[in-house]
Amino acid sequence: MTGRRGHVVRQAVLAATLAELVDVGYAALTIDNVATRAGVHKTTVYRRWADRESLVTDAVLEEAATDFEIPDTADIDTDLRTAVRNLAAWLTGPVGTPLVALLRSDASRLPGLADAKLRFFAARSQAVRGRVDSAAEAGQLPVGIDPMALLSTLTAPIYLNLLVLDRVVTPDDCDRAVRIALTAARAGLLGPGS
Amino acid sequence: MTGRRGHVVRQAVLAATLAELVDVGYAALTIDNVATRAGVHKTTVYRRWADRESLVTDAVLEEAATDFEIPDTADIDTDLRTAVRNLAAWLTGPVGTPLVALLRSDASRLPGLADAKLRFFAARSQAVRGRVDSAAEAGQLPVGIDPMALLSTLTAPIYLNLLVLDRVVTPDDCDRAVRIALTAARAGLLGPGS
Repeated sequence: MTGRRGHVVRQAVLAATLAELVDVGYAALTIDNVATRAGVHKTTVYRRWADRESLVTDAVLEEAATDFEIPDTADIDTDLRTAVRNLAAWLTGPVGTPLVALLRSDASRLPGLADAKLRFFAARSQAVRGRVDSAAEAGQLPVGIDPMALLSTLTAPIYLNLLVLDRVVTPDDCDRAVRIALTAARAGLLGPGS
Repeated sequence: MTGRRGHVVRQAVLAATLAELVDVGYAALTIDNVATRAGVHKTTVYRRWADRESLVTDAVLEEAATDFEIPDTADIDTDLRTAVRNLAAWLTGPVGTPLVALLRSDASRLPGLADAKLRFFAARSQAVRGRVDSAAEAGQLPVGIDPMALLSTLTAPIYLNLLVLDRVVTPDDCDRAVRIALTAARAGLLGPGS
């Protein structure tokens, strides 16, 4: 399975895997059902993926790759509001929805995916660090904010809604998280060791 | 399986179910392995539970029942610190650990458990409401705080650590969440519609 046709089949199988992950979860996901959904014969899937563990891992790592940037309009309040709204839209959109389903499934135990998840958060923390540093230089935030503490305060309520409470995330939810995080940052509650 | 012997067997099977949920998750949980772990024959398990769905549901509902109270020492800052530290200890202790494992597994899709989870949060929100009202009467918090918004701000970072980041929760993490939530409440950020 090489060349253009192989690529098309591969993408169809990976997309079907993510759709199955959303609809039935990981425990009930079977290669047979993925093949049916993708419109290919199951031997086509087994030829490339030995088991559902490797199939789900490939699907998530390939389809869910993302760049995460925090805009810089020189106003940190506006930029964080944009970033958190963008994150919420992404988490509830076509790419993020399977990732959220993954976190709520036993597939979160797959070593390749557990690693990817931590890399993902490390990259986001790094993006926050860059933007927080420029905001501190501009006098809009105190110096020495812990980027991971800020990222957690900004995003934890969104993950709680999606992972635990089965709630939609509204733009107001995002804006409130940003106001709380900025208030905490300016009150000195997000510094290292605070 | 009735009487004292039946009760002992039942408790052993339910405890083994929760332990398996923690160790291997839901997708890999089998009635055979639960029976082995409980030291009973698998027919003993099948006689009472038709499938692993009902077994896991029973185990969680019976073993994980809990009362959640917020202390009232007349100082809201102290009381929320105690409550959040208690919650973190509970979530990482013998009762909460299987519940956290459940939230990270496909068992979170079981209807009986999804319902129980929402009842659990509703009960906690109700407890927060009672304590927030008495704090408002004492002039320690503004009137009209949304209990669910406060509960989310207090606990979301803890769930993020446990459900997503695979981090331990330290007492410092708890205290920071409380400081952030109280600062937000007093800045008027947790009112209804804020």
